[in-house]
Amino acid sequence: MNTLWKVSADSFVNEKESIMRMGNVYQIANGYMGYRGTLDEFGPDELVGITIAGIFDRVGDSWREPVNAPNGGYTKLTVDNNDVSALTTSVKSHTQNLQLENALFNRETTYEVAGKTIVVNSSRFLSADTPNLGVIKYSLTTDKAAKVMINTGIDCNIWDLNGKHLVNLRLENRDNVLLVHAETNELGKRVAVAEMIDIDFGKCKHEIADNKNLHTIELETEAGTTYTFYKYFAVFTENDTVASVNDAAIKNVTEAKLAGYEKCLNDHNAQWTKKWQYCDVEIDGDDEAQQALRYSIFQLLIVAPVNGSANSIPARALSGQVYKGAIFWDTEMFMFPFFLYTYPEKAVELMRYRIKTLDGARRKAKTEGVGFEGAFYAWESQDDGDDACTYFNIGDPNTGRDLRTHFRDKQVHISGDVAIAMWEYFKLTEDDTLLLEGGAEVILECARFYFSYAYYNTNKNRYEILDVIGPDEYHERVNNNAFTNMVAKATFEIANKTVNYLKHKHPDAFKTLIQKINISGELHRFVEAEKLIYIPEPNNEGVIEQFDAYFKLKDTSIKELKATMIHPNEYLGAGQGLAVPTKVIKQADVVMMLNMFKTRYSKEIKKVNWQYYEPRTEHGSSLSACAYAMVATEFGDLDFAYEYFLKTAKIDIEAKYKVYVGTIFMGGSHPAANGGAWMTAVFGFGGVSADENQVTINPRLYTKWNKLQFNLVYKGDRFTVKITRGAVEILPLTMNKNSHTFIVSGQSVVCAPGNVVFIK
Amino acid sequence: MNTLWKVSADSFVNEKESIMRMGNVYQIANGYMGYRGTLDEFGPDELVGITIAGIFDRVGDSWREPVNAPNGGYTKLTVDNNDVSALTTSVKSHTQNLQLENALFNRETTYEVAGKTIVVNSSRFLSADTPNLGVIKYSLTTDKAAKVMINTGIDCNIWDLNGKHLVNLRLENRDNVLLVHAETNELGKRVAVAEMIDIDFGKCKHEIADNKNLHTIELETEAGTTYTFYKYFAVFTENDTVASVNDAAIKNVTEAKLAGYEKCLNDHNAQWTKKWQYCDVEIDGDDEAQQALRYSIFQLLIVAPVNGSANSIPARALSGQVYKGAIFWDTEMFMFPFFLYTYPEKAVELMRYRIKTLDGARRKAKTEGVGFEGAFYAWESQDDGDDACTYFNIGDPNTGRDLRTHFRDKQVHISGDVAIAMWEYFKLTEDDTLLLEGGAEVILECARFYFSYAYYNTNKNRYEILDVIGPDEYHERVNNNAFTNMVAKATFEIANKTVNYLKHKHPDAFKTLIQKINISGELHRFVEAEKLIYIPEPNNEGVIEQFDAYFKLKDTSIKELKATMIHPNEYLGAGQGLAVPTKVIKQADVVMMLNMFKTRYSKEIKKVNWQYYEPRTEHGSSLSACAYAMVATEFGDLDFAYEYFLKTAKIDIEAKYKVYVGTIFMGGSHPAANGGAWMTAVFGFGGVSADENQVTINPRLYTKWNKLQFNLVYKGDRFTVKITRGAVEILPLTMNKNSHTFIVSGQSVVCAPGNVVFIK
Repeated sequence: MNTLWKVSADSFVNEKESIMRMGNVYQIANGYMGYRGTLDEFGPDELVGITIAGIFDRVGDSWREPVNAPNGGYTKLTVDNNDVSALTTSVKSHTQNLQLENALFNRETTYEVAGKTIVVNSSRFLSADTPNLGVIKYSLTTDKAAKVMINTGIDCNIWDLNGKHLVNLRLENRDNVLLVHAETNELGKRVAVAEMIDIDFGKCKHEIADNKNLHTIELETEAGTTYTFYKYFAVFTENDTVASVNDAAIKNVTEAKLAGYEKCLNDHNAQWTKKWQYCDVEIDGDDEAQQALRYSIFQLLIVAPVNGSANSIPARALSGQVYKGAIFWDTEMFMFPFFLYTYPEKAVELMRYRIKTLDGARRKAKTEGVGFEGAFYAWESQDDGDDACTYFNIGDPNTGRDLRTHFRDKQVHISGDVAIAMWEYFKLTEDDTLLLEGGAEVILECARFYFSYAYYNTNKNRYEILDVIGPDEYHERVNNNAFTNMVAKATFEIANKTVNYLKHKHPDAFKTLIQKINISGELHRFVEAEKLIYIPEPNNEGVIEQFDAYFKLKDTSIKELKATMIHPNEYLGAGQGLAVPTKVIKQADVVMMLNMFKTRYSKEIKKVNWQYYEPRTEHGSSLSACAYAMVATEFGDLDFAYEYFLKTAKIDIEAKYKVYVGTIFMGGSHPAANGGAWMTAVFGFGGVSADENQVTINPRLYTKWNKLQFNLVYKGDRFTVKITRGAVEILPLTMNKNSHTFIVSGQSVVCAPGNVVFIK
Repeated sequence: MNTLWKVSADSFVNEKESIMRMGNVYQIANGYMGYRGTLDEFGPDELVGITIAGIFDRVGDSWREPVNAPNGGYTKLTVDNNDVSALTTSVKSHTQNLQLENALFNRETTYEVAGKTIVVNSSRFLSADTPNLGVIKYSLTTDKAAKVMINTGIDCNIWDLNGKHLVNLRLENRDNVLLVHAETNELGKRVAVAEMIDIDFGKCKHEIADNKNLHTIELETEAGTTYTFYKYFAVFTENDTVASVNDAAIKNVTEAKLAGYEKCLNDHNAQWTKKWQYCDVEIDGDDEAQQALRYSIFQLLIVAPVNGSANSIPARALSGQVYKGAIFWDTEMFMFPFFLYTYPEKAVELMRYRIKTLDGARRKAKTEGVGFEGAFYAWESQDDGDDACTYFNIGDPNTGRDLRTHFRDKQVHISGDVAIAMWEYFKLTEDDTLLLEGGAEVILECARFYFSYAYYNTNKNRYEILDVIGPDEYHERVNNNAFTNMVAKATFEIANKTVNYLKHKHPDAFKTLIQKINISGELHRFVEAEKLIYIPEPNNEGVIEQFDAYFKLKDTSIKELKATMIHPNEYLGAGQGLAVPTKVIKQADVVMMLNMFKTRYSKEIKKVNWQYYEPRTEHGSSLSACAYAMVATEFGDLDFAYEYFLKTAKIDIEAKYKVYVGTIFMGGSHPAANGGAWMTAVFGFGGVSADENQVTINPRLYTKWNKLQFNLVYKGDRFTVKITRGAVEILPLTMNKNSHTFIVSGQSVVCAPGNVVFIK
């Protein structure tokens, strides 16, 4: 196995912090659920978590968060009546690795117990073929004959951040299938976990314990013989469209056991082969970048939603309940492009999630502030689209009080982010079914929201978007944030295009839609607003003001600013934060806009603004560095871009990020940064962009690299692009349906199915 | 002397705190300058201050503040070479009083020094007839022969809050006139103090000390003989229209000495007789209320600007440099009505001050935020109309940091407060000269400001005033504050009336004005805005929402709120203050509006809103109680009104107010509360209101009172109104020019010159 296709460790560090971080790095997932990279014998104290996508629960006054399933992957041994665990037993050696090519987690641990050596070996995967299924192969070998007891089954001790989400927990043994089922606390949604083992040790005693969630297998081992058994566990919830979650779970494990481990693994691998064919990026000449980027892509692939689920990807993916399991703008801005350009059947689920939660966005618009029209998407969105973000969601360590922040009520760009992604999907896939199944409704409701939020400035004959937070969250309640205004303008533009498209292509659907949402009298306003909305333009020096009167703020260095902090964890924003009266910003804002609307601004403007804002940017968000990196590639500062690219790409493989803010645990993976790493490689160094007419490639191969190779899908056809020093090769699949125009470094070429195009 | 016409003390408390408070209570002033109620021998440590109206200075980074003059009232004795001072000498007895009828401060102190008794007696006044002049009569008597040395002259040790404002101080003796002259630090404005004494002790040695600011008079007293001398001091600044401040000061004291003490006092008294004829209010049957109210009126009379000065009255009047000597909205809202209804030649100066500072208001509009049109008056206004208010003007005791507050940039109602007062002056005086000499320009520029600040809400077809602070300063950056929107609407209305009036009455002046300020193309907008500006109306329960979404704030009691304070001085507003997320308000806001626009709202609405907001009001401003009191009289809760009236009226005579906020000294008098007390008596219990057509009187005599008698001026004619139980008597002066309509308890009567009208 190529080292660039795995992450591995060759020792076990018995420290809480290390166990927690390893849990993130070695996690596996299949879109339906995530399984943290913990060892078979671990429990809630080691943050074992099987986090299920799209099901949320609330206990008491704590915040809602995703539900963790009882752990069907649990196995623990005793040897001669001694507990065996990496936590308490002498570990002679330990290795573990995660195979990126198929999301297989392997561990091998050699223990010394009562003078005997025991080797434990296990591999596990969450099936990419059968979303509800987890499969484990577990082996043990003793160097001397020993009395081994295996406890395996479903561990009902669940790690939860905010209370016990599963109530009425019942444990059953149904013909040797262990079944744990329960209901969620808040909504009473049914959740079931079934487990079956496939064991053939010959002589052994196999019982199911009284409490019914564990098998106990007593075995007299022979020295040197390896004993292997297989575990199958299935998780079902009421969100699955099944008649009975219990029956479905039992059926699932029964069938899996019948098929057997190898079949299950092969089916799983076949899916993974396809994923990498679609999505891999190769970087020749830079193993560090190659591995970090591939790991980033891997992170996105494991959490891509199950087809048809209409789920999206939370900010910490499925690595736990962190950040309330909520979906932020990060998904549309930083993850969606990866899927759109490589794996549109996943991109479409992210959009279906927004369609599914449109009513929540409507409720939010109606109830926020004085009440608005249309759709105001949740800043922190869960299953129903209601906002999980609180009005006081940052603690002030100086006073112990919760600070009023306006993330929820003023970060209005979220709606436009959704609308823009919705339209991008249509633009690059030509698939209008998404528009027809609700996407157009989303777009119109977002435009409607902006129109009701906007104000007309009579003196200046323009619409303005007042009282918002842009991407830079340190400056709350600002007026005419350039980014937000551009997003609103784009939303109006998209709404107008949607109206024109539907009117001509689907007049009946159009009629039905405008009647349904009673919007015909408002459509002319979107045309007016697109024209008259105020977009801050570059000043004489070429700098675009981030928001009204930003230039009047105090110019101070980040270092000077931080020197005045009283508490190391104090928040720099929120009304009276230290950054508020200064030009110091949390993350890319104007530069984010330049990246998002890249054709609107010249290289020169990009450079000037980059140079102005970069020294003032704290990069306090994992989303900041990649935005700066992408813009830097455009005006040619590749060294800088590379530094920020690597920083972004390594965030999860290195796992050196902060995991606590105050007392709040926020450790976990960073799928937005993972997406940012891919974008920096493909959009930045690859120089790729696309619209309804063509794919553009302006290669900016980094000095250190010999080749940058990646895959793209455009209007349903697939391409491999190889960028080498001075040349670009485009390989359209033979099975592609159409020819497409590519503009490579300004040169227009037509890529017909199966015809390799080489451009020097 | 009636005890209701004086305040007095019969002992001297030798404590810093008491000396400071007595300095406020016993202050005298004549509009040109104030002289704190300190004793002759006191110096800067006892907060002696002669604060000059309308001249400001800044030293270094400290804030600008009024200039204090060198103390021309200084006298100190030695007896047999022992210093005599209330601070260090044994005081056998001490009495002091302030005569309200003529603003005369008297002290008599009996000391024991070296076995002898010495009685010191002094009286002082600042001439109400000759603004620059101060006069002192000083006597001493010893019970045994003694060697007395008198040091008298100009004390150049000046109490200053923020640095030494007078530089290049020169001391001169010009033919026995002591002269101290200097320049202000910032602008180099010339300031001069001259002093002369009139002494005739027969045999004594009179020298002028080397440093030339003090006379030393050596005198061998005879037992039981009283030795009296007179001091005349004059203060001039470059703001006086004189060729030389030195010469003017010398001339002033020379002439005063020539005229003599009695003549000076008589001229002074004649002015005071007139003042009280114009302004007195009598309350029969309630000495406490009578004295407190009269003292309040006295406070206003002493600081009424000198005719022609175009000065206004600072928030702490002339009692020191506190609050930067700045003029706030308090002046228009709480002091101006008193002068308008009793003493219009003083009211006009307050308005001239706003005309004088119009350019400052224009500068502020241009430079605040994104820049606005028209006139945005300073929140804290000094001589030039530039804003003395800082962006960080409250310290946070929890962190030691200065809090960003938005008093300066968001309290936009100030401009309308000015415009409304300007129009009121015209309405009640029929004197349009003020409009012509700049008042109309002020009004149009204020309307222009609001139009440029307002936004049009297309969905709702209305103009809105966003992002403001209303009178309740705890809630910053709110939208559609009912008070502010009403003020803006009134401003548009007034602007439209001004245009119509000038167009017809003074077409040339109108033409010149609109050309001067290039506003003809905007006038139609004011008409539209008057119609379309959004005014929050009562909800189903009759409550008017203070601002958008106020009703959504947390309902908590003031007590509960305060229980969560960490530091007793922590500010409850400013972004993250404890009151911000709650309905707790600092001071009358909706209720202030109901009082200001009283004809627009029914009694029932007033009562409902009063009952809703009062329990939520902290009354953290001295301006709050009287607004609640006045509205309470309208719906008949006279007991409550009385309680709040008394609270307001007694503020300065009791002097129990807080004098420090954090480390900032803010002790001093409260002329706005003084005006509020008068308004509560006359507008509240008297039920007086007036417009261009008539004076309305709806008497609501408090149970305890037998008679409420007050004086009014209306369109240049004067009236005394006597309200007794069940009857109202109106006494127009015989010299009145016209008959006027009065509506008394709904009954219309005509008051012809000299014709007493009695209504039962």
